[in-house]
Amino acid sequence: MQRSGVLYRVHLLRQHRHQGLGPYHSRLYAAYHRGDGLRQLFGAVKNINWNANRSPNCEKMCYNNGYPILGTRLGPGSASAAGTAPALDGHSICNDWMVFMKIEVYASNTHVSKKDMDGKVVVAVDTLRAATTIITALHNGCAQIIPVEDVEKAMELAANMQLNNAVLGGERNAKKLPGFDFGNSPLEYVPEAIADKTLILSTTNGTATIARAADAKRLYIGALINATALVEELVRLGEDFTILCSGTHGKFSTDDILTAGCFIHLIRQRKVPLELDDLGRVAEDLYNRAKKGVPKALQGSAHFERLMSLGLAQDLDYCLTQDITDVIPVFRDGRIVLQ
Amino acid sequence: MQRSGVLYRVHLLRQHRHQGLGPYHSRLYAAYHRGDGLRQLFGAVKNINWNANRSPNCEKMCYNNGYPILGTRLGPGSASAAGTAPALDGHSICNDWMVFMKIEVYASNTHVSKKDMDGKVVVAVDTLRAATTIITALHNGCAQIIPVEDVEKAMELAANMQLNNAVLGGERNAKKLPGFDFGNSPLEYVPEAIADKTLILSTTNGTATIARAADAKRLYIGALINATALVEELVRLGEDFTILCSGTHGKFSTDDILTAGCFIHLIRQRKVPLELDDLGRVAEDLYNRAKKGVPKALQGSAHFERLMSLGLAQDLDYCLTQDITDVIPVFRDGRIVLQ
Repeated sequence: MQRSGVLYRVHLLRQHRHQGLGPYHSRLYAAYHRGDGLRQLFGAVKNINWNANRSPNCEKMCYNNGYPILGTRLGPGSASAAGTAPALDGHSICNDWMVFMKIEVYASNTHVSKKDMDGKVVVAVDTLRAATTIITALHNGCAQIIPVEDVEKAMELAANMQLNNAVLGGERNAKKLPGFDFGNSPLEYVPEAIADKTLILSTTNGTATIARAADAKRLYIGALINATALVEELVRLGEDFTILCSGTHGKFSTDDILTAGCFIHLIRQRKVPLELDDLGRVAEDLYNRAKKGVPKALQGSAHFERLMSLGLAQDLDYCLTQDITDVIPVFRDGRIVLQ
Repeated sequence: MQRSGVLYRVHLLRQHRHQGLGPYHSRLYAAYHRGDGLRQLFGAVKNINWNANRSPNCEKMCYNNGYPILGTRLGPGSASAAGTAPALDGHSICNDWMVFMKIEVYASNTHVSKKDMDGKVVVAVDTLRAATTIITALHNGCAQIIPVEDVEKAMELAANMQLNNAVLGGERNAKKLPGFDFGNSPLEYVPEAIADKTLILSTTNGTATIARAADAKRLYIGALINATALVEELVRLGEDFTILCSGTHGKFSTDDILTAGCFIHLIRQRKVPLELDDLGRVAEDLYNRAKKGVPKALQGSAHFERLMSLGLAQDLDYCLTQDITDVIPVFRDGRIVLQ
């Protein structure tokens, strides 16, 4: 259950479209008095359509199978505020509290300041390819990953750590760097190459995203290959969070936005009431229309086409496959390790 | 015709799916030898599907009614580079040059630096509501508009200009400012209130967008109410351009993105070959699915809902109506005037 988020007071209203207490309405009513609460009932109800009707006295309202449910947004809060919710001037049958999970999405790390991410739960996304590479390396036994923004600092650090089993990986503009052990292809990070090693990683956009969110309360690394595992962790955590996409050189990149949409879709499947920003809504919509063929949906998008033109079709196939692993990387004290 | 943009060398290939020279192919061939050139032919051809097939030797390729057309991207260029295009190793029947119009879209003025916009053709978009207000004021006879980012500077300027027929308009967070003559509702700017006046305008996001693009080569102000007129001007100009959306406090705002999508849709209707970035592709797609009911498509989006909750339904109706006027505002020497 969502521990903290955006608190709503919700009411199942007495009046409903068909008048009289229908069987569905009665069932809701009975369940409420068994102590399930609307909060639980909502979890079992499909097609909650907030904003389908708007009234001047409330911010959100939905008709659920013809029965009006009214919600009033109270702002940030937690389920522990519960107690008995007040009735609505004799109009409501059931009154309860609900906590919505607020998800914010940013298309590029350059669209936020470090301070914006301070104290938040953040998922850093770079599907093509840094996040996928990080997840794969940890899946294949890598001990820890140290993300470094600057190439020269990465080389210095690797030189100093050489005795400690360190390897150097990364790219600039999708190309491997001279003097580096690995590029940014997740397929290079096989167990025999990476197990028990410390990976020092520097990439064009991905490591900048992690640096931007370094002061987050929790910082996860997400991509399509660990989508379900990550979403289950986020639902278990039950807090609002921010999806910080890497984008490409400060621009919106469809691969990352589709990944954000995938997370949102999977969370909604788990019946968590969501409050999304505009980009989150667009991301969910894009993913819902693309989910049967993500690679096809990305045809013509800039970063996908660039990697394709570099002959990286195998990388793309891998990066765009959902749920290859359950690994959840977290950033903590300057390094990325298994959750 | 597009004067400058992204130059492609295009070839109609000898081999085609059905083999033999079909009637359609023959017609293309004949038209080419009449001197129409593939450039013109493309203008009459629907469903150009670049990237439907990819070959290692070219960046873009399309099948047009079964006939392969191959395009090789040569980078920024102009149609004057024309002359005779070389044949493709005996494989091509027609060879020509095409210039694509490159359109970039940014979701917020905070996503670019002033320098990024330097020397470019830029359309500043703030559909809800500053751009719509600017267009409406000029439509109703306003002499000029001076956009000012800072509220106090706006008040100072208005005080100094009082004898010169100046009025003060604007908002912060959608609310009219104390001491201002007008808020940011386009419906306030009726002819009797604004004709022949100088409007000093300061809004939350819109004036910042104009300031960010102040060094553009040309800076237009665009919204849904002047979409077709503006698009015709852009097609006439025939140059690459950037759509700089205002967004809301640095965030992606669906109303502005739909407006960008509307411009792209209208340009494509005019048979201009387009090269879009990822956000442009998403914007066009969103608009194509929303165009039958833009207000409905915006339900649930943050800025739309905020204005609705402030009782501004009439403003929304007006701002979201396409092609109310032919007015094209341009920013020049610190003020916005009629094109």
